[in-house]
Amino acid sequence: MSGEPLVPVEPPAQAVREAVARALAEDLLPMGDVTAALVPAGLRARAAVVSRQAGVLAGVACAEETCRQVDPGLVARFELRDGASLAPGTVCGWLEGELRSVLQAERTALNFLCHLSGVASLTRRFVEAVAAANPATAVLDTRKTTPGLRALEKAAVRAGGGRNHRGSLSEGVLVKDNHLGGLGIGEAVRRARAAWPGRMVEVECDRLDQVEEAVRAGASMVLLDNMGPEEVRQAVALVDQLVGQGPGRPLLEVSGGVTLERAPALAAAGCDLLSVGQLTHSAPALDLGLDLTVVEPAGS
Amino acid sequence: MSGEPLVPVEPPAQAVREAVARALAEDLLPMGDVTAALVPAGLRARAAVVSRQAGVLAGVACAEETCRQVDPGLVARFELRDGASLAPGTVCGWLEGELRSVLQAERTALNFLCHLSGVASLTRRFVEAVAAANPATAVLDTRKTTPGLRALEKAAVRAGGGRNHRGSLSEGVLVKDNHLGGLGIGEAVRRARAAWPGRMVEVECDRLDQVEEAVRAGASMVLLDNMGPEEVRQAVALVDQLVGQGPGRPLLEVSGGVTLERAPALAAAGCDLLSVGQLTHSAPALDLGLDLTVVEPAGS
Amino acid sequence: MSGEPLVPVEPPAQAVREAVARALAEDLLPMGDVTAALVPAGLRARAAVVSRQAGVLAGVACAEETCRQVDPGLVARFELRDGASLAPGTVCGWLEGELRSVLQAERTALNFLCHLSGVASLTRRFVEAVAAANPATAVLDTRKTTPGLRALEKAAVRAGGGRNHRGSLSEGVLVKDNHLGGLGIGEAVRRARAAWPGRMVEVECDRLDQVEEAVRAGASMVLLDNMGPEEVRQAVALVDQLVGQGPGRPLLEVSGGVTLERAPALAAAGCDLLSVGQLTHSAPALDLGLDLTVVEPAGS
Amino acid sequence: MSGEPLVPVEPPAQAVREAVARALAEDLLPMGDVTAALVPAGLRARAAVVSRQAGVLAGVACAEETCRQVDPGLVARFELRDGASLAPGTVCGWLEGELRSVLQAERTALNFLCHLSGVASLTRRFVEAVAAANPATAVLDTRKTTPGLRALEKAAVRAGGGRNHRGSLSEGVLVKDNHLGGLGIGEAVRRARAAWPGRMVEVECDRLDQVEEAVRAGASMVLLDNMGPEEVRQAVALVDQLVGQGPGRPLLEVSGGVTLERAPALAAAGCDLLSVGQLTHSAPALDLGLDLTVVEPAGS
Amino acid sequence: MSGEPLVPVEPPAQAVREAVARALAEDLLPMGDVTAALVPAGLRARAAVVSRQAGVLAGVACAEETCRQVDPGLVARFELRDGASLAPGTVCGWLEGELRSVLQAERTALNFLCHLSGVASLTRRFVEAVAAANPATAVLDTRKTTPGLRALEKAAVRAGGGRNHRGSLSEGVLVKDNHLGGLGIGEAVRRARAAWPGRMVEVECDRLDQVEEAVRAGASMVLLDNMGPEEVRQAVALVDQLVGQGPGRPLLEVSGGVTLERAPALAAAGCDLLSVGQLTHSAPALDLGLDLTVVEPAGS
Amino acid sequence: MSGEPLVPVEPPAQAVREAVARALAEDLLPMGDVTAALVPAGLRARAAVVSRQAGVLAGVACAEETCRQVDPGLVARFELRDGASLAPGTVCGWLEGELRSVLQAERTALNFLCHLSGVASLTRRFVEAVAAANPATAVLDTRKTTPGLRALEKAAVRAGGGRNHRGSLSEGVLVKDNHLGGLGIGEAVRRARAAWPGRMVEVECDRLDQVEEAVRAGASMVLLDNMGPEEVRQAVALVDQLVGQGPGRPLLEVSGGVTLERAPALAAAGCDLLSVGQLTHSAPALDLGLDLTVVEPAGS
Repeated sequence: MSGEPLVPVEPPAQAVREAVARALAEDLLPMGDVTAALVPAGLRARAAVVSRQAGVLAGVACAEETCRQVDPGLVARFELRDGASLAPGTVCGWLEGELRSVLQAERTALNFLCHLSGVASLTRRFVEAVAAANPATAVLDTRKTTPGLRALEKAAVRAGGGRNHRGSLSEGVLVKDNHLGGLGIGEAVRRARAAWPGRMVEVECDRLDQVEEAVRAGASMVLLDNMGPEEVRQAVALVDQLVGQGPGRPLLEVSGGVTLERAPALAAAGCDLLSVGQLTHSAPALDLGLDLTVVEPAGS
Repeated sequence: MSGEPLVPVEPPAQAVREAVARALAEDLLPMGDVTAALVPAGLRARAAVVSRQAGVLAGVACAEETCRQVDPGLVARFELRDGASLAPGTVCGWLEGELRSVLQAERTALNFLCHLSGVASLTRRFVEAVAAANPATAVLDTRKTTPGLRALEKAAVRAGGGRNHRGSLSEGVLVKDNHLGGLGIGEAVRRARAAWPGRMVEVECDRLDQVEEAVRAGASMVLLDNMGPEEVRQAVALVDQLVGQGPGRPLLEVSGGVTLERAPALAAAGCDLLSVGQLTHSAPALDLGLDLTVVEPAGS
Repeated sequence: MSGEPLVPVEPPAQAVREAVARALAEDLLPMGDVTAALVPAGLRARAAVVSRQAGVLAGVACAEETCRQVDPGLVARFELRDGASLAPGTVCGWLEGELRSVLQAERTALNFLCHLSGVASLTRRFVEAVAAANPATAVLDTRKTTPGLRALEKAAVRAGGGRNHRGSLSEGVLVKDNHLGGLGIGEAVRRARAAWPGRMVEVECDRLDQVEEAVRAGASMVLLDNMGPEEVRQAVALVDQLVGQGPGRPLLEVSGGVTLERAPALAAAGCDLLSVGQLTHSAPALDLGLDLTVVEPAGS
Repeated sequence: MSGEPLVPVEPPAQAVREAVARALAEDLLPMGDVTAALVPAGLRARAAVVSRQAGVLAGVACAEETCRQVDPGLVARFELRDGASLAPGTVCGWLEGELRSVLQAERTALNFLCHLSGVASLTRRFVEAVAAANPATAVLDTRKTTPGLRALEKAAVRAGGGRNHRGSLSEGVLVKDNHLGGLGIGEAVRRARAAWPGRMVEVECDRLDQVEEAVRAGASMVLLDNMGPEEVRQAVALVDQLVGQGPGRPLLEVSGGVTLERAPALAAAGCDLLSVGQLTHSAPALDLGLDLTVVEPAGS
Repeated sequence: MSGEPLVPVEPPAQAVREAVARALAEDLLPMGDVTAALVPAGLRARAAVVSRQAGVLAGVACAEETCRQVDPGLVARFELRDGASLAPGTVCGWLEGELRSVLQAERTALNFLCHLSGVASLTRRFVEAVAAANPATAVLDTRKTTPGLRALEKAAVRAGGGRNHRGSLSEGVLVKDNHLGGLGIGEAVRRARAAWPGRMVEVECDRLDQVEEAVRAGASMVLLDNMGPEEVRQAVALVDQLVGQGPGRPLLEVSGGVTLERAPALAAAGCDLLSVGQLTHSAPALDLGLDLTVVEPAGS
Repeated sequence: MSGEPLVPVEPPAQAVREAVARALAEDLLPMGDVTAALVPAGLRARAAVVSRQAGVLAGVACAEETCRQVDPGLVARFELRDGASLAPGTVCGWLEGELRSVLQAERTALNFLCHLSGVASLTRRFVEAVAAANPATAVLDTRKTTPGLRALEKAAVRAGGGRNHRGSLSEGVLVKDNHLGGLGIGEAVRRARAAWPGRMVEVECDRLDQVEEAVRAGASMVLLDNMGPEEVRQAVALVDQLVGQGPGRPLLEVSGGVTLERAPALAAAGCDLLSVGQLTHSAPALDLGLDLTVVEPAGS
């Protein structure tokens, strides 16, 4: 990994703790696990977390936290961390403790793992498709995240090798048609740069003359909205001509209808960033499950 | 609707309020919408919520609540409610108010609408496929929901015409292999019925002799795990023979690997319920968007 | 306990953590324990949790959690668990740690123990009175719980040997007169069964013909509202005649005005369930207290 | 009311909002009211809140807030407020709105009203018993409140005519035997007064010589622990002799085992305050219910 | 304002609602306002919010929200908004409603107004001092905010004419000495740009050779740590020489020990940004108060 | 410290946990520390918490809790506790753990330490100034605290040697002009004492005749509003004459415009208490920082 950019793949602990507490409350209130009553107390179990599909692991911190919140005596040991590649049958880690506790934690832990690994796995597919076409193009998520899970899903995108677009409306300026009112793009960019120094100032463009106006005004990113490879190529050429390859060069992002099929050609056309809403709003869950063995109690 | 069962499709207001508050905090803290600064205060807009795809609407209450929490002056008027069928171009409703407020609410409202309509739309496809094969078979969700969104997703399943399996580990007994320890199925069911009178007591069965044991012991539901149509048919016949068609007859649920392709044959085999994890864990978002018009201010 | 139904008596950890945090905030904000200032830091104490009355213990998990949240160094060791019978003078467990911490935790821990043991103790009295008259009749709680404490009180009912009726409006259908509008009972039950497959569908009945209609339509429970023993006997006979003793037989619940005096006769009349609001809304606290000894500091 | 002390009987709005939100979440998540599905939308109802017993009303703000949170269109109109005397059959107020909303709000609103009116009613009985014996003696609550409901229960005590002892460990100093370590009472009081100027400094006393020491050191209140009328009389005489009747005279509180039977004699013995744990930990619920009428829809 | 950058000065509503709820809970639980009992219910008041000092107003949304949460009938009408200049005696707005409600809201509303106006006022002083020396230099806040109030304080800085540095560790990269380990600055910047495309990448520099390395690697901002005017001038010249004045030019920020006295010279030296911790960690409150008039009740 | 009053200087753990969780959420959501990515995992650091100024330490519990919540493996060891005197260069304690964790915790921990130590340090200056003039006069805080931080700031005042005025509107009666309506002071005090027995009843007075009326009616405290030393002396003499020096003597508090310059003379005039709003609303932060050393990993 030496020469590569380092992106932390773990979500912040604060987000993990809150999301897990919410999920357990959903699944256990008010009576707890009414089926667990049948299981004799004291019976212990050991369960492997196994992938049933190929993909990319994400959500390990959530699974660990789920165990901790269900029962401090329930230990989660993951040999793999977020970002690891999974084949069918790969054992990601182990839960060990009271059988009752394992059964209580099972679904919540898996709901996190399957959803977030689904996001990571779809991201990885885009990243690989794009890398083959143009290793300099990054795959980005969007703000089209599942409500309440933004921090976790953005981490899962990083686990899949993607990069994060702005985390919120609060993080960066993205000027769309609707924001302009009577204002020209150039004036809008100049105002935004003055109002929010140091922050991303991006402009959504449908035409090359808009790109030129945005770049001349100092936009740090340009969003090429729903453009095809040929238009992207022209935009790249235009930016080459306007500002060259130096460090201040704005990033060109393609957004809108970026599918796995279309991504390679768009990347090959030279854009810096491809943003893909489906990474977070439509990734199917990755199939992971528990293989559980009841362990004979010590004294028996 | 006269003869049909009535299922409320709206989620509880408590769940809506909390989920929306969380989502808006994700998107607007700490600085608010830094781009909105460019929009002159006082400019008003009118935006249609339009479907870009065919499907089923869900999440209206969340969109309304999003508007309310962003700005009490931002009015959401939905002509369609959860459960309505959508064609490409269908206008579901309108947002009207300050342009700045519309832009602030837009993504959060759409994130709810697109995700929940995705769940409702996939459910509707299963429901229709199943109804054609056996109108008596219901489509059920599972506990494989997105963490933090269970109440909303279960409502979206109802909006799609599906039914809700137990809402949590606390609501009903579902005995799986791992719960049994040395206990026989019959004894487990008897204990569960005595421990939780009036609650669902379901047993996961891999074989017909297990089904028989569960039914004889008084299980109210039997989960046929990963069975094919022929095995389902045998299970149905067995139950016919054991208890006939009376009101006390246990429900037969098929679960595990129920895809759109396999669902009709399983329904035709006579099961009462088909439970489908992907309704909530893998439904792709439905594409809805805002068509926004800036309205000239009154005095101009 | 071999042949008996197993009901878990402990409340879910999520409910315990939240309720304790709330109670401690009530008692310690904003200044903490202003009296503790008088106690020299470092002084250690050992306190027995002692019952001053006969009854049934409940709330141990809350007491333990209170200690943990007040001071991780304050250890709670309970020799008895929820459900244990108490005589006057029974020592339930011990708190050990800094005297200041014991004094801070004392009232909150006791408030939980006294209230929840009160619920468990009253439940036990009903359970014993009923068992003598008809061992097949279970004692149920209701939704008439103290706001904010439902999960804890329902666990205390289980600790007293009772069973839990539905935990919320969301868990099961209970059709009362007011729900019917123009609908007949039979039609209401059929719709409810179709709308919520697998869930309890209960009908409140004032007359035998309503019971018959409910049973014929497949209600899983029948609530005999404010009926006396003779009416209950007739209802039981009616159900015997309609469906016999098989596993699909609906449960007969008597509700309304069930006092300790009336319970045995109602149970003897053959009902399956007696639901008792006062278990949770009017149980007097059980008197438990701390017997505290200041321990000489190590070095003195 | 002109000459009487004015005590606000309403709880703070903050406490009401939080407690109601919690209670509704308990009762409606995740599926909402599954029975309400049977009720045609649009059907309206009018329901009287009626007392079935004599007592004192409390909890009106909670009932109103419950309606507001369930459905902004559900109107609660209370003709009586907290503190009003109720006879069997007294109509306290009205709920009016969609039948579905009334049914959803019913149990939660009543749980607050019945519990808090129970507290107010028991308080009123103590207050009246005491007033007959000594109009100068006030009835106080304690910190033995139901966890999570302290603010509401303390307001209900005021509605019943009682007064509030300290609201938390943080509000005032109450020196008990266990706090003293080697310290004498006089020294403890002096330190407490210096540490917390202006706050209540009370000392629990078992003997008259302790009372003298506490009074001489400037305690603002003296708690006579488990004393009988004769001892109380002696304590009163002692304080008369030490400090007379001036404004700086400390208040004498009797606490421990104060029952309805013993209260009048203790009051007659001249104490200023009687504190009664059972007001909040053991008050039985007052029986209030809804008398509901379905209103024909406007157009029919 | 035509040509000026537009910066929204209002904090996000989500932050306001939460902060106000917390503050009111601090001030009113558990008993409410015990002094308000003396005020006859129904008495109405009108109170002017008046500045006692010159300064800049901030916190209006918090004051309005405080009134709303205390009593929906308490109306706040502010003629001035955040950012308005205040002289001694300036009336900012009016509260009108029940006297009891005004008294309950008073301190909490003023605590917000005085604290946040203090931040805005100090910011304005820096902004004016800097503008006189170099109108192109912006004044920035830092992450040295009061815990729990970041969103509100950052809005107050904007109200004072300042700009916001990153809102959190999550928003932008700021490489300090401690982050480098063995890595060179250039390599660190390249990795950060690749890892977080579009985000601010800033490098803290103590020497000019570091500035050069950072700029060559494409840093978007350079933090000149504790530098004096002469060093700043050299850094500016260096950047002029390296990249000229184009839109991609990195911003030069001076940070560390920026006082009102030193700010003009630093600005005159040509830096783009001056970041000032004391804006949020040490701004004295601005003195605002209520001038209250009791209004005769309507009928008297 | 033997003969001195003992005031606990630590804030309640509940307040610490909540405030730290909020502060970390502000600083780390949604992406975590994006700069930490550059730091190789596993690198360990040791950081001294060092004062750069003379002052008084406060906030240690918050710093410890910050470390715990960021990373359970990040250990905080403080050799000094709240209330300790600091000189420039004093090492207060140490953080030790993963470098990434130290960098994540740094700003949040310092924000608490600097703000709360600022409050404690300013308090100490007042306390010392007053003690030299009149050792019997205590320095009090007010309710003019930073919203959301009342419990922590009041603890910091105690750490500085100050005392706490009432913690909220709920804790004690403070009658101001606006509360009186037509009521006389004497009547107001009598009502308040009857309504809230045992609680502080204080009256704000502008003139000596008001002081007399308040004292005669039994006020426990008198607030001399904006009075100068001569008026204070007269008030003291008046109280001497009315009630002498006994334990029931009301406390005389001077409030309004109490600066460091004016405090000694006011204390010397004989008042018991000086309340100072600026302790909490305008204390500048105390400058503390981390001196960090990267520790070579064990194996290298």
